[in-house]
Amino acid sequence: MRSFEVKNRTSVEEIKSLRLITAIKTPYLPDGRFDLEAYDALVNMQIEDGVEGVIVGGTTGEGQLMGWDEHIMLIGHTVNCFGGSIKVIGNTGSNSTREAIHATEQGFAVGMHAALHINPYYGKTSLEGLISHFDSVLPMGPTIIYNVPSRTGQDVPPRVIHTLLQSPNMAGVKECVGNDRVEQYTSKDIVVWSGNDDECHDSRWDHGATGVISVTSNLVPGLMRELMFRGKNLSLNSKLQPLIEWLFCEPNPIGLNTALAQLGVVRPVFRLPYVPLPLAKRIEFVNIVKALGRENFIGEKDVQVLEDDDFGLIGRY
Amino acid sequence: MRSFEVKNRTSVEEIKSLRLITAIKTPYLPDGRFDLEAYDALVNMQIEDGVEGVIVGGTTGEGQLMGWDEHIMLIGHTVNCFGGSIKVIGNTGSNSTREAIHATEQGFAVGMHAALHINPYYGKTSLEGLISHFDSVLPMGPTIIYNVPSRTGQDVPPRVIHTLLQSPNMAGVKECVGNDRVEQYTSKDIVVWSGNDDECHDSRWDHGATGVISVTSNLVPGLMRELMFRGKNLSLNSKLQPLIEWLFCEPNPIGLNTALAQLGVVRPVFRLPYVPLPLAKRIEFVNIVKALGRENFIGEKDVQVLEDDDFGLIGRY
Amino acid sequence: MRSFEVKNRTSVEEIKSLRLITAIKTPYLPDGRFDLEAYDALVNMQIEDGVEGVIVGGTTGEGQLMGWDEHIMLIGHTVNCFGGSIKVIGNTGSNSTREAIHATEQGFAVGMHAALHINPYYGKTSLEGLISHFDSVLPMGPTIIYNVPSRTGQDVPPRVIHTLLQSPNMAGVKECVGNDRVEQYTSKDIVVWSGNDDECHDSRWDHGATGVISVTSNLVPGLMRELMFRGKNLSLNSKLQPLIEWLFCEPNPIGLNTALAQLGVVRPVFRLPYVPLPLAKRIEFVNIVKALGRENFIGEKDVQVLEDDDFGLIGRY
Amino acid sequence: MRSFEVKNRTSVEEIKSLRLITAIKTPYLPDGRFDLEAYDALVNMQIEDGVEGVIVGGTTGEGQLMGWDEHIMLIGHTVNCFGGSIKVIGNTGSNSTREAIHATEQGFAVGMHAALHINPYYGKTSLEGLISHFDSVLPMGPTIIYNVPSRTGQDVPPRVIHTLLQSPNMAGVKECVGNDRVEQYTSKDIVVWSGNDDECHDSRWDHGATGVISVTSNLVPGLMRELMFRGKNLSLNSKLQPLIEWLFCEPNPIGLNTALAQLGVVRPVFRLPYVPLPLAKRIEFVNIVKALGRENFIGEKDVQVLEDDDFGLIGRY
Repeated sequence: MRSFEVKNRTSVEEIKSLRLITAIKTPYLPDGRFDLEAYDALVNMQIEDGVEGVIVGGTTGEGQLMGWDEHIMLIGHTVNCFGGSIKVIGNTGSNSTREAIHATEQGFAVGMHAALHINPYYGKTSLEGLISHFDSVLPMGPTIIYNVPSRTGQDVPPRVIHTLLQSPNMAGVKECVGNDRVEQYTSKDIVVWSGNDDECHDSRWDHGATGVISVTSNLVPGLMRELMFRGKNLSLNSKLQPLIEWLFCEPNPIGLNTALAQLGVVRPVFRLPYVPLPLAKRIEFVNIVKALGRENFIGEKDVQVLEDDDFGLIGRY
Repeated sequence: MRSFEVKNRTSVEEIKSLRLITAIKTPYLPDGRFDLEAYDALVNMQIEDGVEGVIVGGTTGEGQLMGWDEHIMLIGHTVNCFGGSIKVIGNTGSNSTREAIHATEQGFAVGMHAALHINPYYGKTSLEGLISHFDSVLPMGPTIIYNVPSRTGQDVPPRVIHTLLQSPNMAGVKECVGNDRVEQYTSKDIVVWSGNDDECHDSRWDHGATGVISVTSNLVPGLMRELMFRGKNLSLNSKLQPLIEWLFCEPNPIGLNTALAQLGVVRPVFRLPYVPLPLAKRIEFVNIVKALGRENFIGEKDVQVLEDDDFGLIGRY
Repeated sequence: MRSFEVKNRTSVEEIKSLRLITAIKTPYLPDGRFDLEAYDALVNMQIEDGVEGVIVGGTTGEGQLMGWDEHIMLIGHTVNCFGGSIKVIGNTGSNSTREAIHATEQGFAVGMHAALHINPYYGKTSLEGLISHFDSVLPMGPTIIYNVPSRTGQDVPPRVIHTLLQSPNMAGVKECVGNDRVEQYTSKDIVVWSGNDDECHDSRWDHGATGVISVTSNLVPGLMRELMFRGKNLSLNSKLQPLIEWLFCEPNPIGLNTALAQLGVVRPVFRLPYVPLPLAKRIEFVNIVKALGRENFIGEKDVQVLEDDDFGLIGRY
Repeated sequence: MRSFEVKNRTSVEEIKSLRLITAIKTPYLPDGRFDLEAYDALVNMQIEDGVEGVIVGGTTGEGQLMGWDEHIMLIGHTVNCFGGSIKVIGNTGSNSTREAIHATEQGFAVGMHAALHINPYYGKTSLEGLISHFDSVLPMGPTIIYNVPSRTGQDVPPRVIHTLLQSPNMAGVKECVGNDRVEQYTSKDIVVWSGNDDECHDSRWDHGATGVISVTSNLVPGLMRELMFRGKNLSLNSKLQPLIEWLFCEPNPIGLNTALAQLGVVRPVFRLPYVPLPLAKRIEFVNIVKALGRENFIGEKDVQVLEDDDFGLIGRY
């Protein structure tokens, strides 16, 4: 189901060159549907501050809480509105090969520039099964493989990656295992994006990573741009650590969702099973914003501490 | 779930001005999935020959045989690849108001320029129910209402249309009831597209219709362009009648599917419940092509008579 | 995907012998989901009053407003709770052959006793296409073909039915075209159920129909039982006509939905595009109930005239 | 969307008393659809050999590779055919609260006796989020919570379980963390099923577990019955260990799928991302069968070593 229209083609080299990719937040209306106005504003702020790509419906964007129709629609929407200004990478991975095939085919059909593929979490499989899974989708277009054993329960080891590199569509790895692993790849000229904001500075400047696929850049895209583009900057990196630590005090995107709501850039609406951080943590965030400077964060409203009652938690949508 | 990005907005006036819109065919791969390469080629030929808009997934495009995810994907794909050159009108209507709402919201989100809405066929409803149905989707963007009682079992009468015209998004009516009805509307400056190829010339030049939403233009877009743009042309109109009569000898798109396969521009693959026209009719088509001139039809291959065995009929896809 | 477990098998003969089948109403909760408690009560009342079968998710039960998952779930639920007391006939027909195949396979897998199949409405097809469509599902189990040209826009002519009768699973026809057509079949020993409540008495007693698939029996199952089982009864038949006329003053199930709400047996919740009958008609219904006798209707509450505000109309569910 | 029909109600006490529950395999046809004949045979063999319950669409049954419609259909089918002889526990858990709500509601509607619920794998959430997630589904019916951090990436700690026990529907825990954790629960009279076949004997007889939710019992239900019902049996337990070790040499159900195919009770069809064990392992299995005795395994055919070419691997189904 391939299309060869020019508008549907992106080179793997273009994907390989990206240094700052944001795993973009999906904001919601009070009834749990997508809030596209807020989403468009978020993407525009990313573009203005120099972010080069977005992951649509990643774990941060809560792809796991979307139906595939919603997910593909959001990819298509992002391509249509912003595809000329930013690379659109659809998280069309799944623990079901059938779903990964279906979604990836559809994602490329609506114009996404690359696919992000996870190994089959929860269900898991053998290494041979991993390769069969990825081989089912790699021919469809530029691909980033995502390794995050703390979520999937299974490491994608280097020998699987080396096998996948036989495909000309294999762009590189979003790696969360740490900088030793990063260097294992970069020493062999394999493109790596750090998947850990707390160590991405070192990944980039000391271990050869091309850049980062970042959660934090949802909030401070300009600072993350600086961190990835303007050379080693230990001072900036250490200034960012308290924010990053706060963001990941609970499984992502709980922190991010709470933060964006308090910055006034998204409605305080959570799709379950995510719930906001508790009040003490919400107060902490306001202090972190003040310490780093409100002007470094996206949005124009004052940061505020939201009350429990301000949040809507949605189970049916 | 509205988006106000510039790329997602089209004026109702732009839609109202379209004279030649093709209800575009959806071609299939041997396993029944969309053949996007063939589809892209079809759309490109439409653009080259001066067609101004396409209906994606109309009854001609077999929207009724698509899942909504496929349907929205095809709209998004068409917008992304061709939205700068041709207006993309998604047939996001349904006999279920829920589905119409869901699909229309998604269709506009992926950038379609207008929606085509049918009244609830088969299930039917009261006139008050009709209005509630259309009112659920009209606020979402430019809209064409489609009236085809021979398919729906229920006429959408002028008083319903007049009520709907209170919405600024109401662009006009695709009307199949005949030229008296057409004139009933155009005499009050309501925009009408003929939904009947055999009478569209008269609708346009004698009864005030703006243009046609055509099946025949899939095959001879240049001739239909001439018919709709270059003034009254009884000779051309009567030359086209044998083709049109042939096309509609069985419920559309049976004839069209058979024709496009014999022209070599789509694979001879049918999604059930459609089956090809019988051999005698297939031979007739070749003669019609020769009479009208092969060069007036799309595609470059010789027209051929396909054998029964050449066709694939697919029930599971 | 066949199962041969005894619990999943019903003979075609058993289906052929049914005289009174109700096209059962699907009641809703205020948010538009199924109200299973009310549904169970409705089915129990049908069983108590001698109804022998139910059509689940027919046009009366608003199958066209269900997702297939909801629809199959409702069939499975009905089989599980009531399958020992009443025959469960799933309306697993569709205008898409793929959907008909998928739903019919699933319906038989969850234990439905027979399938009701409509010809492809709206999209329509050729007679050869009709046969291909029905042939795709007939091998799966006992089947009733439903002919209602006023909804589908296309008559299923006798010669198609005769072809389908080659299948041992073909149980008979639900025919809405009239008693001449009924007799055309019954004179050849083909089983027919009337699909028109207003003429079912004559179909049964004068034209050889086996029985009726009834809307009216939702309301007065006991009287319909009498009409179908206890011999010719012109007096009862004419007493029922005002109710039947009222029920079909707008496309079914608008009248039925309004009636059941006013009888207090379902919540006054409509899924769009259905809306309640207007006040004048609602008052008329109360008078009809009084004339026929409240005790002949299901439920125990007083019949009441509901106000406009009492009704909920749901577009998203 | 509750139903209170008697046939749809099971007591939590009945669920709590089950000692041997099989996480039943889902067999496939060559095109990847369910092979219901083979499935029915598998369930019948479980019933004959004394298994008291089945998990439908667990990780073993590859629920993660099903659409929800398939999954609910399979639950409904199992209830309809076998619900009088065996408890049917639907794995209606999901990492999306919406999906868990939807599936659990549907599962109970088609008559499942209990639900198995996993914590949100991959996406993960905070402990407060976990509780909100489970609280969304617990009111619907008897529930078993499943804890398997090696798959989910997150432990469900005892304090979450204690909170959930406030619900009268909470039946107990399927625990994979080990026997210390098992005893932590059983010492407080909380019902536990071991989720690890290799240690289930000790869980049951030394640590107070009620029983096991087993993979191995797919193959040797009679021996697992003996292990769970007839008192401590170190000899039988150690005789089973080589089989269990073999079964879990790769992520389950890779071993199980391979074994059942070689026993001739399911077709050698794998849905990707699962692939068969390599030849050496397949030979090993035949030797294990011979050592334990073919008569202790289900099926009547000779066990055989399948060739690579015998297997079908399906990505689209």
